[in-house]
Amino acid sequence: MKPVAVRTITRTDMALVDGFAALGSATVHEAQGRIGNLRPYMRPIYDGDTIAGNALTVLAQPGDNWMIHVALEFCQAGDILVVACVTENTDGFFGDLLATCAQSRGVRGIVIDGGVRDTATLKKMQFPAWSRAVSMKGTVKSTLGAVNVPIVCAGQLVFPGDVIVADDDGVTVVAQKNAAQVLAASEARESDEEAKRARLENGELTLDVFNLRPSLEASDLEYVDSLEALATYNGINCKR
Amino acid sequence: MKPVAVRTITRTDMALVDGFAALGSATVHEAQGRIGNLRPYMRPIYDGDTIAGNALTVLAQPGDNWMIHVALEFCQAGDILVVACVTENTDGFFGDLLATCAQSRGVRGIVIDGGVRDTATLKKMQFPAWSRAVSMKGTVKSTLGAVNVPIVCAGQLVFPGDVIVADDDGVTVVAQKNAAQVLAASEARESDEEAKRARLENGELTLDVFNLRPSLEASDLEYVDSLEALATYNGINCKR
Amino acid sequence: MKPVAVRTITRTDMALVDGFAALGSATVHEAQGRIGNLRPYMRPIYDGDTIAGNALTVLAQPGDNWMIHVALEFCQAGDILVVACVTENTDGFFGDLLATCAQSRGVRGIVIDGGVRDTATLKKMQFPAWSRAVSMKGTVKSTLGAVNVPIVCAGQLVFPGDVIVADDDGVTVVAQKNAAQVLAASEARESDEEAKRARLENGELTLDVFNLRPSLEASDLEYVDSLEALATYNGINCKR
Amino acid sequence: MKPVAVRTITRTDMALVDGFAALGSATVHEAQGRIGNLRPYMRPIYDGDTIAGNALTVLAQPGDNWMIHVALEFCQAGDILVVACVTENTDGFFGDLLATCAQSRGVRGIVIDGGVRDTATLKKMQFPAWSRAVSMKGTVKSTLGAVNVPIVCAGQLVFPGDVIVADDDGVTVVAQKNAAQVLAASEARESDEEAKRARLENGELTLDVFNLRPSLEASDLEYVDSLEALATYNGINCKR
Amino acid sequence: MKPVAVRTITRTDMALVDGFAALGSATVHEAQGRIGNLRPYMRPIYDGDTIAGNALTVLAQPGDNWMIHVALEFCQAGDILVVACVTENTDGFFGDLLATCAQSRGVRGIVIDGGVRDTATLKKMQFPAWSRAVSMKGTVKSTLGAVNVPIVCAGQLVFPGDVIVADDDGVTVVAQKNAAQVLAASEARESDEEAKRARLENGELTLDVFNLRPSLEASDLEYVDSLEALATYNGINCKR
Amino acid sequence: MKPVAVRTITRTDMALVDGFAALGSATVHEAQGRIGNLRPYMRPIYDGDTIAGNALTVLAQPGDNWMIHVALEFCQAGDILVVACVTENTDGFFGDLLATCAQSRGVRGIVIDGGVRDTATLKKMQFPAWSRAVSMKGTVKSTLGAVNVPIVCAGQLVFPGDVIVADDDGVTVVAQKNAAQVLAASEARESDEEAKRARLENGELTLDVFNLRPSLEASDLEYVDSLEALATYNGINCKR
Repeated sequence: MKPVAVRTITRTDMALVDGFAALGSATVHEAQGRIGNLRPYMRPIYDGDTIAGNALTVLAQPGDNWMIHVALEFCQAGDILVVACVTENTDGFFGDLLATCAQSRGVRGIVIDGGVRDTATLKKMQFPAWSRAVSMKGTVKSTLGAVNVPIVCAGQLVFPGDVIVADDDGVTVVAQKNAAQVLAASEARESDEEAKRARLENGELTLDVFNLRPSLEASDLEYVDSLEALATYNGINCKR
Repeated sequence: MKPVAVRTITRTDMALVDGFAALGSATVHEAQGRIGNLRPYMRPIYDGDTIAGNALTVLAQPGDNWMIHVALEFCQAGDILVVACVTENTDGFFGDLLATCAQSRGVRGIVIDGGVRDTATLKKMQFPAWSRAVSMKGTVKSTLGAVNVPIVCAGQLVFPGDVIVADDDGVTVVAQKNAAQVLAASEARESDEEAKRARLENGELTLDVFNLRPSLEASDLEYVDSLEALATYNGINCKR
Repeated sequence: MKPVAVRTITRTDMALVDGFAALGSATVHEAQGRIGNLRPYMRPIYDGDTIAGNALTVLAQPGDNWMIHVALEFCQAGDILVVACVTENTDGFFGDLLATCAQSRGVRGIVIDGGVRDTATLKKMQFPAWSRAVSMKGTVKSTLGAVNVPIVCAGQLVFPGDVIVADDDGVTVVAQKNAAQVLAASEARESDEEAKRARLENGELTLDVFNLRPSLEASDLEYVDSLEALATYNGINCKR
Repeated sequence: MKPVAVRTITRTDMALVDGFAALGSATVHEAQGRIGNLRPYMRPIYDGDTIAGNALTVLAQPGDNWMIHVALEFCQAGDILVVACVTENTDGFFGDLLATCAQSRGVRGIVIDGGVRDTATLKKMQFPAWSRAVSMKGTVKSTLGAVNVPIVCAGQLVFPGDVIVADDDGVTVVAQKNAAQVLAASEARESDEEAKRARLENGELTLDVFNLRPSLEASDLEYVDSLEALATYNGINCKR
Repeated sequence: MKPVAVRTITRTDMALVDGFAALGSATVHEAQGRIGNLRPYMRPIYDGDTIAGNALTVLAQPGDNWMIHVALEFCQAGDILVVACVTENTDGFFGDLLATCAQSRGVRGIVIDGGVRDTATLKKMQFPAWSRAVSMKGTVKSTLGAVNVPIVCAGQLVFPGDVIVADDDGVTVVAQKNAAQVLAASEARESDEEAKRARLENGELTLDVFNLRPSLEASDLEYVDSLEALATYNGINCKR
Repeated sequence: MKPVAVRTITRTDMALVDGFAALGSATVHEAQGRIGNLRPYMRPIYDGDTIAGNALTVLAQPGDNWMIHVALEFCQAGDILVVACVTENTDGFFGDLLATCAQSRGVRGIVIDGGVRDTATLKKMQFPAWSRAVSMKGTVKSTLGAVNVPIVCAGQLVFPGDVIVADDDGVTVVAQKNAAQVLAASEARESDEEAKRARLENGELTLDVFNLRPSLEASDLEYVDSLEALATYNGINCKR
């Protein structure tokens, strides 16, 4: 791996980015065709925040946060740090001092396939983090990685300048060139869901609201009136 | 596996069910003889809710929530969805639209050996979920499973109409035929614990309150006055 | 393993212990040279508490909390229970009754390489716990272990009377004989960080505040102006 | 849990049982409708053995093998020990002495949701084991469980006298009352696969041998001639 | 995700591919700059095989092997199937019939971020597999994925036609355009290691053979003659 | 952590060490009172070797094998490398070149709470390794650790010069000062087991050979003749 730091990246238009912040990660993931979701082990350190931003990418070495420091020189308001590691590692790469620096420059949060620390302070600062772990374990500044190169983070390819959407359901990434179209599709999906939600609140079934009855009727599903009719199921006596 | 949906189930009397809601899952688990506990990887998406209800069971395929839609047609007020999967899967089978439908019909929550999503909305709706994972990953409606059959969910056999008790400690199941007796035993245990709690708050030791001294005295436990008396323990020098 | 209970332990001076409570576990871990951190699977059952105390150690058998009861007879105000298990086990060794007894005697919390239960009540009582798991699974009182001997808990050697510092970042241990020196180093580190935090809030970079530029310049890191300059990186086309 | 030991069980006819030994667990699992498979964390301690037998069931406590000793009094030639544990535990419940006793009485192997030890000797003895772990950790004989009751082992309900089929692919269970029918279906499936294997060895495609083309043609799958035709896929530039 | 199957791919020259088969995955990984390694949970089903081939890529749905069947129509001698899944799944996507078809067409093995089955037969056939799991669990043919598109498999981006090298140490991928250069670098590394191995067999130290003494001398490492000189280390009494 | 390398260690007498090699790790673990066992995630890279030796300890940084090189300068015939890491890490710290150097100086194997690589070659060389993982991932030589200090490895405290016994069941450690006594106890246990094995081969029950009947009779275990007598057990209908 060539140790390299890319100074300037092409960001997604903030009008688009901010549009995503009003939507959830699940909606965006669905709207772009069920792609972009990072693995579900990536969890927020506190609940309730939804953020969207431009990815500022870092490829780190295990137990080493040197490249995060390098990356901060290139950050702008509206960015989100996205940190991959060359191996599986849970150390505390990122804490309150780095967060203070990042926040003072307008960075909205961090997504890291590693650990974070000082989480009580991060929560107080309202600086959200999605990570593989929380760990106090300190890191060094000894081995080079890379900044603002394409990375694979928690199973997804992320480019600098891609849109990151993160909330309690996890993290999803939208490729920059698809951002406008995915935002439109997400908003359409959201509107459509609003209408459906109203019907469901009125007691209608999802079978009807989502028009699932035709495919169900065409299927082999057999309806029976009661467990007694089966006697056993998968070898289990249907009488408890 | 025969794809089958059982329309009507024999529910546990709601007077019994509601009795359980005032007790914790741990108390019920103990009162029925330390059984019924689902594996501890089943965690609530938010803290603080205790629910009890009748199990409405679903056996799902990985990445497929079709059968949950089918199940909702049969739900009643006081039910809890209990979803097993034929394999280990963390996808987001259940989100806010399904929850809206379920809640409008009186369903009290979901227990799922899989993933849930839209968790921020579920929390706002006060629709609790216990799950293996939180994941935005969408699911399809392609492969049949079963509804209201006996299932094994997170290591426990659950029948439709069994009582489910879920809180911050996890999920336990009570077989319907044992419900009245387990409720009585749980309440007795709870009363007994109240009395003990008062004594403990007054500074008594659990050794005395639980009458543990006789068996302790009959045991081989050796008391020594200080670490110095041991020199080494398990090969460790007792001097730090 | 010889079943033994040590009655009296040499505690760390409470003035020192209480000094640690104002600092975070991460700061203490760093200040003593990046050591003492328990494995990051040890998580608090609720967020927001920082405690420090003298370790009262227990070595338990799987599914058996007998020794915790024995240990409570020896506790004092300012102690923290630290429980290791001879094998990996997630059962609910510790619940609200034990917590009531412990709290009434001034114990500040528990650190356990096992499970805890009644977590909603523990939270209400403000009795914090750091554990490997939350589980309702009950335990027995059948097999002896040890009390107040040196133990390995979640990867760290802990002696009775060592200082335990626990917060949202996890748990760290300070050897008693190092306590005064580590406290001083922690406070120095904290002061130093305060100064740095102020500069970072003003928008300075960590590269400057931590004086990272010299080593960076001496390194092989290559700066390039844009991804286009690379064409591919790690075999990935730099055009998304 | 009531501590109970059931002395006599109704075994499946050995002619049926031995019929299964010639088939693999995957074939049997498929032939009975894709059910009966224990979770894939159950792995053999050595490769290459396929066994079938009658389940002799044990419900054990963590770190305690007392009930396995009790069970051996009731075993017969052709049995397989199937051991569940009331919680997740990896201790070495079963080693060479228990295996010697079991083998001398005709027991064919062990399936245990826990750990085994003396694995080098077990291999030498040709006494196969499928387990969650290998661990030297010793166990005690202190807390009662149950023998020859229905258990849930690695996610499957197992009754004493059910047929167990275990090989390199894992472990499957066949309910006794379904044994004859599942054996017939397994043999039919095996024959059918033989015919297909011959065609596949001759270079035919599974698309043809399994007649998958009609449903494929009815699907939305789009064929394109080359990656160049796509430009990007899931946001990835199709040029490496 | 658009369901698409790409018919023809640009393969790496087989002379290059076969050159890799003589080298280990670790050597290739190092020679290309410590990149390309799939996550270490990808393990071979049997030991001792080293294969190299062109990646034929598949993106599968959980519990669904439809796309593997589609992919086999496009395979050639020297290919290796590389299967990613849109979520984490351990089902048995691939067994002996698919292997028979693949082998009859010259496919050299499979790398799958999922499960395989019929592993005893695969071993007998000498058809190697690297997978996340072994599982008998059957799969369906219901939901479309993609064939011969770029995928992320076990943390690495893989394009159709990339070189895959797999052995007992795991799996590494080489981007097609780098293949010639990486092969040369791997062979150079191998030669260099041969020379070093001879010196090491003669009893020289790696400190000398790898010329590690200068950096060591420049470091802060302190040599002491014996543990007694330290008294304690990391708070541990240096006297056992 | 102070970076330090201890040059000379006090080894256990090789006559004692070699005595352990004839016994299994499980026997030694039991004979010293069920202590000393490393966590069961430590697995051999190939089956069938039993080794015993003096621990030469290393404390490594994640992704960094520098200290292993330093340690080899101090090794002697009969040593076993025991490597802990300051955090959880699976990288390939140790491969065939280090093994060649170690073997040429009489080192008998490695126990590492991290990853190893070149495992096919290690097997060919008959240089056994017990590790947390197999991984090709390369490591650097950048950050100092320590050599020949007391370490916690996979949950056990290990001192340089302690006896390590490793086989297919895992790894156990014997404190040097206990070595003679533990060897004697292990040999006594082994003899005792020989006698018992003969009786068990003759068909006697472990209940009799281990004299388990008296405690069983004193227990609450209830014997029943058949499942029918129970009707239900743990809420399960005893009729399958």
